[in-house]
Parts: sequence; structure tokens; C-alpha cells
Amino acid sequence: MPRVDLNADLGESFGVYRLGLDAEVLRHVTSANIACGFHAGDPMVMARTVAMAAENGVGIGAHPGYPDLQGFGRRNMELAPEEVKNLVIYQVGALTAFARAAGRPLQHVKAHGALYNMAARDLRLARAIAEGVKAAAPDAILLALAGSAMVRAAEEVGLKVAQEVFADRAYNADGTLVPRSRPDAMIHDPEIAIPRAVRMVTEGKVTAITGEEVPIRADSICVHGDNPEAIAFVARIRRALEEAGVEVVPLAQVVGG
Amino acid sequence: MPRVDLNADLGESFGVYRLGLDAEVLRHVTSANIACGFHAGDPMVMARTVAMAAENGVGIGAHPGYPDLQGFGRRNMELAPEEVKNLVIYQVGALTAFARAAGRPLQHVKAHGALYNMAARDLRLARAIAEGVKAAAPDAILLALAGSAMVRAAEEVGLKVAQEVFADRAYNADGTLVPRSRPDAMIHDPEIAIPRAVRMVTEGKVTAITGEEVPIRADSICVHGDNPEAIAFVARIRRALEEAGVEVVPLAQVVGG
Amino acid sequence: MPRVDLNADLGESFGVYRLGLDAEVLRHVTSANIACGFHAGDPMVMARTVAMAAENGVGIGAHPGYPDLQGFGRRNMELAPEEVKNLVIYQVGALTAFARAAGRPLQHVKAHGALYNMAARDLRLARAIAEGVKAAAPDAILLALAGSAMVRAAEEVGLKVAQEVFADRAYNADGTLVPRSRPDAMIHDPEIAIPRAVRMVTEGKVTAITGEEVPIRADSICVHGDNPEAIAFVARIRRALEEAGVEVVPLAQVVGG
Amino acid sequence: MPRVDLNADLGESFGVYRLGLDAEVLRHVTSANIACGFHAGDPMVMARTVAMAAENGVGIGAHPGYPDLQGFGRRNMELAPEEVKNLVIYQVGALTAFARAAGRPLQHVKAHGALYNMAARDLRLARAIAEGVKAAAPDAILLALAGSAMVRAAEEVGLKVAQEVFADRAYNADGTLVPRSRPDAMIHDPEIAIPRAVRMVTEGKVTAITGEEVPIRADSICVHGDNPEAIAFVARIRRALEEAGVEVVPLAQVVGG
Repeated sequence: MPRVDLNADLGESFGVYRLGLDAEVLRHVTSANIACGFHAGDPMVMARTVAMAAENGVGIGAHPGYPDLQGFGRRNMELAPEEVKNLVIYQVGALTAFARAAGRPLQHVKAHGALYNMAARDLRLARAIAEGVKAAAPDAILLALAGSAMVRAAEEVGLKVAQEVFADRAYNADGTLVPRSRPDAMIHDPEIAIPRAVRMVTEGKVTAITGEEVPIRADSICVHGDNPEAIAFVARIRRALEEAGVEVVPLAQVVGG
Repeated sequence: MPRVDLNADLGESFGVYRLGLDAEVLRHVTSANIACGFHAGDPMVMARTVAMAAENGVGIGAHPGYPDLQGFGRRNMELAPEEVKNLVIYQVGALTAFARAAGRPLQHVKAHGALYNMAARDLRLARAIAEGVKAAAPDAILLALAGSAMVRAAEEVGLKVAQEVFADRAYNADGTLVPRSRPDAMIHDPEIAIPRAVRMVTEGKVTAITGEEVPIRADSICVHGDNPEAIAFVARIRRALEEAGVEVVPLAQVVGG
Repeated sequence: MPRVDLNADLGESFGVYRLGLDAEVLRHVTSANIACGFHAGDPMVMARTVAMAAENGVGIGAHPGYPDLQGFGRRNMELAPEEVKNLVIYQVGALTAFARAAGRPLQHVKAHGALYNMAARDLRLARAIAEGVKAAAPDAILLALAGSAMVRAAEEVGLKVAQEVFADRAYNADGTLVPRSRPDAMIHDPEIAIPRAVRMVTEGKVTAITGEEVPIRADSICVHGDNPEAIAFVARIRRALEEAGVEVVPLAQVVGG
Repeated sequence: MPRVDLNADLGESFGVYRLGLDAEVLRHVTSANIACGFHAGDPMVMARTVAMAAENGVGIGAHPGYPDLQGFGRRNMELAPEEVKNLVIYQVGALTAFARAAGRPLQHVKAHGALYNMAARDLRLARAIAEGVKAAAPDAILLALAGSAMVRAAEEVGLKVAQEVFADRAYNADGTLVPRSRPDAMIHDPEIAIPRAVRMVTEGKVTAITGEEVPIRADSICVHGDNPEAIAFVARIRRALEEAGVEVVPLAQVVGG
């Protein structure tokens, strides 16, 4: 029986600022990427979010990002690999402590925003992230863009790795994502996005924007919890997966983490 | 044979800014309180400092403070106990990850600056710190001002606790420190300070500013590494302790941590 | 014809985080207290907010706070008066530059949150704020809690000062606000709050929580723009003032700033 | 009689952290680029530095940088031009307020670190900086790398501009700086650097690393105040300039600011 994880970014509030429908999306996803205070999140938000994830039986993951609260970690920054490794250790350690406080293990780590995007293409940066995770949480799974440099870096470093796909993004023939700067980068219609995601899991294939059939490994599907429509989409994709005979389970049960 | 630990604050550099003669003081102390990025320190500094402490066989401790880099954590802030508990979990977790990366356990936690001073008198705040340590690092020792509310809080929460004394500070008859605002708060003469510190360890007594003999428990002596004179003082106090038959060892060997 | 200003806190968003219905409340108020990047706001938000205020003919004010984004400037911090003076200069200067970019003068300064509350009672702190404003923007009006130490400090320093009242807060017989910690601190019913505010302007009196008639000077009424109910309240209070023959105008037209 | 300005970065301390021999270098330079709290500096440091510059008759300049204290503004960040414009307005405004408090005008603005280097080559970024300066301080001089995109942007925007040269850096035949990544980028020998700088001022020429004579405009020479050797170098270069008949004066007297 095929298995897949549904992951979403959570704990992105900060101080008085509220972002994301965390309580709602936690009812549908199986893994949570929880912000660690650099691009979003703070100690209070992390404690609350980890506790909510634990209550919902959702796998707890650290979601480290660049130290850029104002840019929400979405602005490219040029850091030395050693700096990246250490900011990953720092953030993973902080989140692990909240997981421990909630009696849960750290299941996985997923880089955020610009760090994720840059490392998907830059093996040196990807290695720095993988080394940081290996140092801070050697048993955690690195959740990486399917087919990216992050997957290779995790394997080199000896980390468990899981590959993630996007239901709402177009793919190139080489398996990379069509950049968001292009008008056709996003798939907005759920009627298209959902069967497409199901097929990535059940058949291991996705149709590229240029028409080719591209092999892809889908250990986890990235979903969003920003607004009510996003929540409805997550509920639908989960139902569609289950109806297609796919077991939707936390990441550790997909890749044996 | 009496035992005592010598502890110093380390890793207080930040970015390009350098503070403290860490490499020098690490040759003399047995435990290091390492800043965790809130009042001082950053991921690069933490990695370097933990590695240096490990190389010197010095016990590694987290030194959490208020989120106030500009004020170096020395400015009083009114935070809710839940906020304090969570900022302790966060910082202890971050430092623990660097210790793990260096193959070392987290030996202890000591609060910094205003957080330390406020919690020494405020049991509610002290409990918040102790609960944070208990949640993030239940096996760590809480290093607390001798006779303070922090000691009581650690005991209530079920944490190992160690009591620290100051060689260069005057004490009141009730065992509290003479506030620094008073001109006679500091003992500047090493000829007085050093035998005084030795006696606190070997006899468990200190002479109060008003002349009384005050019982005091000295598991650890706090020393400084800011400048060459401070380093020389640390070397001298260590020699004097050893000549008095005191074993100078990491905190975990003093309190069985 | 009596005059009064309606002021609200604006520009409290930060990065991706949105707070407050700024566009809506700007249609009803006459002065805006714009966050300056320490407790809320960032350069992008400040530019946008100043531009919107200018378009609406609303008086532009700086709203400096403690350097505490995580606590939204609501947590008491103990800073030296010199530190407070300089953080006021800094923030007032930053906001003034955006006003200048929009071709507008800086009309006023109002301290935020914990800084406002602490300075209302602490003349030393109030003087530090007044000196900061005097140094950075000598022609600006200091908007201060009616009857507070801030009013006195502004007068001592030679700044124009305006006194503000709260429609939704209970007053003590000595003219101070009933602390929010008390259950009867807030006046939630608009049917009571609105005529009460009108009377403060037209008669210069408010009924204390203990029944006494208290003289009060109301140059400006503080209102909120957090949610649709708050916006509706602002619209109603403005209408009620105008129906009572009060001219609702920017602060500079009330106190001759 | 030829004229030149000597400029140095100042006010780069932060909180308890001290950086730079500001008091010493202020005796020799004629213009100060003062950090504005984003990559270095804080309100206390800014107040102190502006006051010291004023006492020494040194021209006061704002030195805005990326919001990256940990990286000292030296790490490349990808910000939208609008973000750069607004962070320049913010920082220039803050520094201007301290200048005003000291009874001095803002003489100039010079971008710092990565912002300076990126904008030297990127006209879009350079324009954003120039527009920010124009909006916040239309009478200030933009101090820009000689021959760079910043010079062009300043001219486009209608700002006064001054061109700066480096005594200790090698130049390419096209007038650009040899990147620091190359081993021959720096000129360490004062016996070479000083006459070279004098010639840039008196003859408007510099010998490129490839041997060509390159025309260069030297309104200001950038010097450093990090350590005693740097201070000695500044004193020597000033003496050499004066002995060569060059008047060393604040930037405003060079370009008629």
C-alpha cells in the first residue's frame, strides 16, 4: 500500500503577529515544519505549536531559515557554508528542546524559503545544511525538494532523506520546479492539482510543463494553511489520496525514519 | 578532600565583535557558561566556544539571558513566567545542539545578567527558569546564587542544583550580595579576595560586610576572563585553592551531576 | 467652537505580518501615531503608512517604543534616561525622514506601550523622552496622557504639549487611569463611552470610577483601528463629536503646533 | 590649490561591544561615515559619535547598511529596490536627528559594505540608494566609489556626488577595484600607497594593476581607524597630502555640498 506524508509550514506567528491557521491545518497534515525564530516564530509560538502538533499526532520538524524576520527568510543572503551549518545547528537545537519538552522526538528538518531554494541548486550550501542536521539531530530525516542537491547532500552526509513534491507547482522536464517568476509556475485549479499529486504518489510520475512524463519520488506533499481555501484544499487532497488507496502517515512512517 | 568548580562566562562575542579572553580563561576554569545568542553570542561563536571548551575538558553550560543584545542582557525586563520558561528552553536547546555536535553533554545552565539577578530574589521567575531547564535538559545542573530563590526553585522542580559564590563581592549578614550600587560592594584586592574564596570552600563561611560569620555553600566560584588582570586572578585563585588541598573540578564532579 | 483631535496607532505591521485596519481608520482619525521599527513597523511599512496618512490629510506623528518587537513594546524595560533619550531621537529621526519624503512635517510624537505607561508616572523617564523629542524635532507636539508626568516634562523642556484622553477607560478621582488589571478598567459600552468622551471635550470633565467629577483636558482622544468594531466606534465617536458642535481636526490645529 | 577629503567609517560599536579607535581617527580625518544601527551602531553609539565628530569639526555622514548586525552588513542580501530605498531613508533619518541634536547638518551619505559594493555595479540598486538619500536628505552629498554606478545614479537623481578612492587597493585598467578575493588586491606598503594616493588627488591618475595609467577623480580618500597602525597611516597620508600642497578639508568644501 503506497504511503505519503502531508507536510505544512507552521508556527510562523511572532509576538502579537498571527499568521496561518495552524489549528485547522493540523487536523489534516501528518508532519509540521515549525519555524525556529530566525525567519518567523518565537519561543512562545514554538512551545504552543509543538504542543498542538503533539496533540494531533503530527510529526514534529524544525524549519530553519535565514536570520531575516523582516523578509520572512525569503530574501537570498550569501552566507558562508560554515555560517549556514551553524545556524541550522542552532535552530534545530532550539526546536528539539521544545519537542523534548512535549515528550516527542524531532522527526525531520526542512529548510525554509530562500535557504531551501538556494540549497536545492547549490550542493555546497546543501551540504552545509545536511552537516548541521547531522551534527544536531543525526536521527532526523532531511525533507528535501525531490531530485535536488539537498537529496544528494543528505545521502553524502549519511542522513535519512525524504523527497517532497508540490501539488500546486509546474515541473520542468528535468524534474526541477518552474520558477515562480513565470506566469505558468502555479497550478491553481484543484481539479488539476489534486489528481496530479495523487499520481505522483501512486505512479511516481508527473507531466512536465513541456509535456514529458517525468519520474518523481513523492515521500511527502507540501501543502499550505494560510487561509480557509488552503485548508479546504488540504482536506480534499488528503481525501483523494485515501480514496486512491494511499496511506497518509507521518514522514517517519514513509521513509522509516 | 573538598572540591570546587571555577566557572566563567564565555562565548560573549557577536559577529565581528570580540569580547573576553576565552582561550586564556579556558586554561584555568573548569566550567564555561556559554552565551546562547540572546544577550550575546551567535551560532558561529557558540560553535567555536563549545569546541574550545571541549578541547580543554571544561564542563559546558548554557548561559541564557534576556533577548537584549544592545543591553547585553543586563537591563531588567518584565516578562511573564511562561515567556521566561520558553526563552530558557529555546536557548538551552540551541546550546545543547552545539554540545552534541562536539560530542559532549550539557553539564549545566546558569542564567545571565538581569535574568540571574531578578530570579535570585523572585521565586516565581526562578521557578520559570528551573521549569525551562527541566523541560529542555532534565539532567543538567542549575548553577544558582548560593542561598537564593533559584536554589529553592531547582529543588522544587527536581533539578540538580549547584550553589555559586563570588570571590570579589561583599556579602550581607543574611548571605545575600551587597548590591553593586554600594561603593563597598566589590572586593578589589586579590590578597583579600583569594583567601576569602578559599575559606568559603574549605570552611563554608564568609565574613559579612557587617562582621558576622555567615555560613555559605560554595560548589562553584564565579570568575571573569575579560582582561589580562582577570586571567591572572583566575590563575592565582586556582593555585591558592589547590595549595589549600581543594580539588578544582568541573561542576558535575562537585555535585554529582 | 471646541476642537479635538482623534489619534490612533498605525503602521504596526512588520514584514509579512499585517496588523490593524490602517486604511479604514485613516478615514476617521485626524492624527496618526506611526510605529518606528522598534516595537513594530519597518521601513516599508513606515513609507506606506506615512503616504496613506498624507493622502488622507492626517497629522503624522512618530510613535517610538522600546526595542522589543517580540513583546510589541508592552513589556517594561529598565533603561537609563540617556538610553531612552537616544532611542527617541533615533526613532523620531527615522519617521521624520519618511514624512519629509512625503512632503509633510512631523506633527507630533507619542510614546508607545510600556514606554508611555512608565513615563506617565516617572518624571525622570518623561524628561528623557521630552529631551529626545526636543533634540530631534523641536517643533513637534508631545502627545501625552492628560495630567501625567509627560505633560510636566514637556513643559519643563519647552516643547508644545497636547493632552490625550481615553473614551474607553475608567478614571480615578485624581485623574489617573484605572489600571487595566482591574476588571472595571475598561468601558465597553459605546452608549456610555461616546457621550463620556464628548463631555470630556465640551465640558472638560469626566466622572471618576468613585463618582467624583474630575476636571480633565482633552486635546486628543485615543481610538483604535484593530478590528471592524473599533472602526465603527471611531466613526460613531467622530459623528457624535461633530453633532455636539466639536470640530475634529489634526492635533496641530488644536494646540497651535 | 587641490582639495581632498579624508573619510573613515565610525560609530561601529554596539552595546557593550567596542570597535574602532574613533577618538584617535577623528583627529586626522575630515569626514565621518557613521553607522546607523542596522549593520553596526546603536542610538547611544550614534549620539556619542556624532558629538565627537562635531567637536572635531569633522563632516557628519550617514553610513547605512543592510539589516545584518551579525554579518556586519558585509553579506550580500537580495532586497527589492523599494526595500533598499526605504532602509536608506530610515537610517539617514535616524542619523540626521542625531546631527540635528548636535546642531550640525548632515553632510553626506555613504553606503556600507555589501550595499556599497553591490550598488557600485548595479545601477538599479544604486538608484534606489540615491532616491532614498534624495527623499530623506536632498542637500546631502552621496559619497560613491569613483567611476561607479553610484556616481551615475546620484547624477540621474539630482544629488550632489563625491567620488572616493582607496589608497590601499589595486585598480583595474577600467577604473574598478581589483576584487579582494585576489591576492594582489591590497596595497600594504605605505611607501607605495601614500604617494599613490597623493597622485590620485594632484594628477587625477592611478596606475592600474596591468600598468596602464587610469584617470580617476579623487574627491575623498577612504581610510581606516581599526588599529594603531591604521591611525598612524592616516596621520601620514594627511601629512603627505599637505606637504604636496593639497588642502585636506571636509567633503562639503571639496564638492561644494
